[in-house]
Amino acid sequence: MTSAPGFSDIRIAHARIAPHIHRTPVLTSAAIDSAVGATLLFKCENLQKAGAFKARGAYNAVLALSDEEAARGVVTHSSGNHAAALALAARTRGIDAHVVMPKTAPAVKKAAVRHYGGIIHECEPTLAAREAAAAQLVDDTGATLVPPFDSSHVVAGQGTCAVELIEDAGTHFDVISCPVGGGGLLAGTAIATAALSPGTRVIAAEPARADDAARGFRLGIIQPQVLPVSTIADGLTTAMSAMTFAVMRELVHDVVTVSDEAIIEAMRLIWSRMKIVVEPSCAVPLAAMLEGAWDARGQTVGVVLTGGNVDLDRLPWTG
Amino acid sequence: MTSAPGFSDIRIAHARIAPHIHRTPVLTSAAIDSAVGATLLFKCENLQKAGAFKARGAYNAVLALSDEEAARGVVTHSSGNHAAALALAARTRGIDAHVVMPKTAPAVKKAAVRHYGGIIHECEPTLAAREAAAAQLVDDTGATLVPPFDSSHVVAGQGTCAVELIEDAGTHFDVISCPVGGGGLLAGTAIATAALSPGTRVIAAEPARADDAARGFRLGIIQPQVLPVSTIADGLTTAMSAMTFAVMRELVHDVVTVSDEAIIEAMRLIWSRMKIVVEPSCAVPLAAMLEGAWDARGQTVGVVLTGGNVDLDRLPWTG
Repeated sequence: MTSAPGFSDIRIAHARIAPHIHRTPVLTSAAIDSAVGATLLFKCENLQKAGAFKARGAYNAVLALSDEEAARGVVTHSSGNHAAALALAARTRGIDAHVVMPKTAPAVKKAAVRHYGGIIHECEPTLAAREAAAAQLVDDTGATLVPPFDSSHVVAGQGTCAVELIEDAGTHFDVISCPVGGGGLLAGTAIATAALSPGTRVIAAEPARADDAARGFRLGIIQPQVLPVSTIADGLTTAMSAMTFAVMRELVHDVVTVSDEAIIEAMRLIWSRMKIVVEPSCAVPLAAMLEGAWDARGQTVGVVLTGGNVDLDRLPWTG
Repeated sequence: MTSAPGFSDIRIAHARIAPHIHRTPVLTSAAIDSAVGATLLFKCENLQKAGAFKARGAYNAVLALSDEEAARGVVTHSSGNHAAALALAARTRGIDAHVVMPKTAPAVKKAAVRHYGGIIHECEPTLAAREAAAAQLVDDTGATLVPPFDSSHVVAGQGTCAVELIEDAGTHFDVISCPVGGGGLLAGTAIATAALSPGTRVIAAEPARADDAARGFRLGIIQPQVLPVSTIADGLTTAMSAMTFAVMRELVHDVVTVSDEAIIEAMRLIWSRMKIVVEPSCAVPLAAMLEGAWDARGQTVGVVLTGGNVDLDRLPWTG
């Protein structure tokens, strides 16, 4: 099993990536506080470089490489925000980022990777084909594989988000809540929170239509995603890894699920009240509070808004 | 003529309103810098309370009232962001805000005023009818008229935005740019900038389809708006007052105009790259740089993003 980072790794990651990332603002909204009946502080990683918290893990993984390793480049076969973030981090270091993507990937995702200078390698649209293509690239080029979440460096990078949230909030959190897909952000958040604010509960939120984490949390055994997965929160369809699952079991206090309808409603509430662009996956923790998946009333809650990469021509409410 | 505030009035305003407003973040975007060829720092008043910088002037005007004056309430006949902001400020002080609106005002504007507890008084859709109805309300209730820009208190409040921008930027600005409608924000920005950063030029930007400020700036005499006005930047269709015009003539270095097409393009660029929701009026200064209305290349520019109140069901690019 990939080893999990300790809190010291998160501190090291933060010092390493701080010159390259935005220290994103923590915003509040009286209207949303009133809708939930709680005091919410939103850590706005949708305003992060490349539009998502993924820049943290990607920069940490790329900057942790030795010069010799770095010279051979990096590879990933994730096609979402991680791929764009890895391309950006690699460009900053002046090295190649190889991104294996299925032929069928949306043009907007390919454009994001190209925008940051990533080299796209197309393959058949199956996980096996993607893994094989990535392994072949590692063999051919000697590049380092940087997975989207099953990596100590990546999780340590994602953990820096909660460090900033806790440092900048100026208040004690009863709860910190973030979405869970593969579990990289969740694991990093839980490790940082346990170290910096041990009285704070960590609650993960997940679409009911992609509920592997919640099922695994209840059963105590890692669960596969039930395929095919279809949720508006398309950034959260990945199943967890053994490492992120183990961290969740040890340090996370609850995992709750929400309907797609509540996700869209929460997304629109964030756009209309906070005047920020968030992607559906990003709205899942707020949706969980609004839907009553856990009782946030009267509590002070830190919420990680994870990303803002949406197709502005295809919003869920404009059909 | 209404008297213009001095910089000391802006300092007083800032101390008065700071507990009630957001100190909005200053954000940057490498992609937009690259598109313009300049270093841009965006002061995000779209993230301000009630979604626009107007909260600054409204809070200052309401909090400057004596208890006796305040008890009689406030009145305005502006129907845009100022009305919502005034209702919010009045609610904070526990007093009535009377808002005269034309019967034909969009439901979304009425809803915003009601959301903050404003009392709507409908009238015929002419400026004369609005002014008459507001004057009648002042007579009947003894409430204080708070105009959207032709007020020393309102301009002093709007000037606090540039104070924060200059204080928080940590760099010298070659230029600070903001949109101009009635000129309240522009006048406050120019007064604050002249005092805090006298080497910084102030450049106002205006839709070519509502170019009274630019024409007046060239001719040296205040100009009326040529009616009917039709621009996507519907927050900037007001003509200036004698006071805001005089401040512009004395302290503003240039007034430039832009096409509606450039405004929509700049608006979309801000949404897609910065992940924030801005209204069309808000995108005018960036549009001016992108369209080459003035040459920003190589300069460090502070840009005031003025507001984020848009109808999410009717975006300019979703037809």
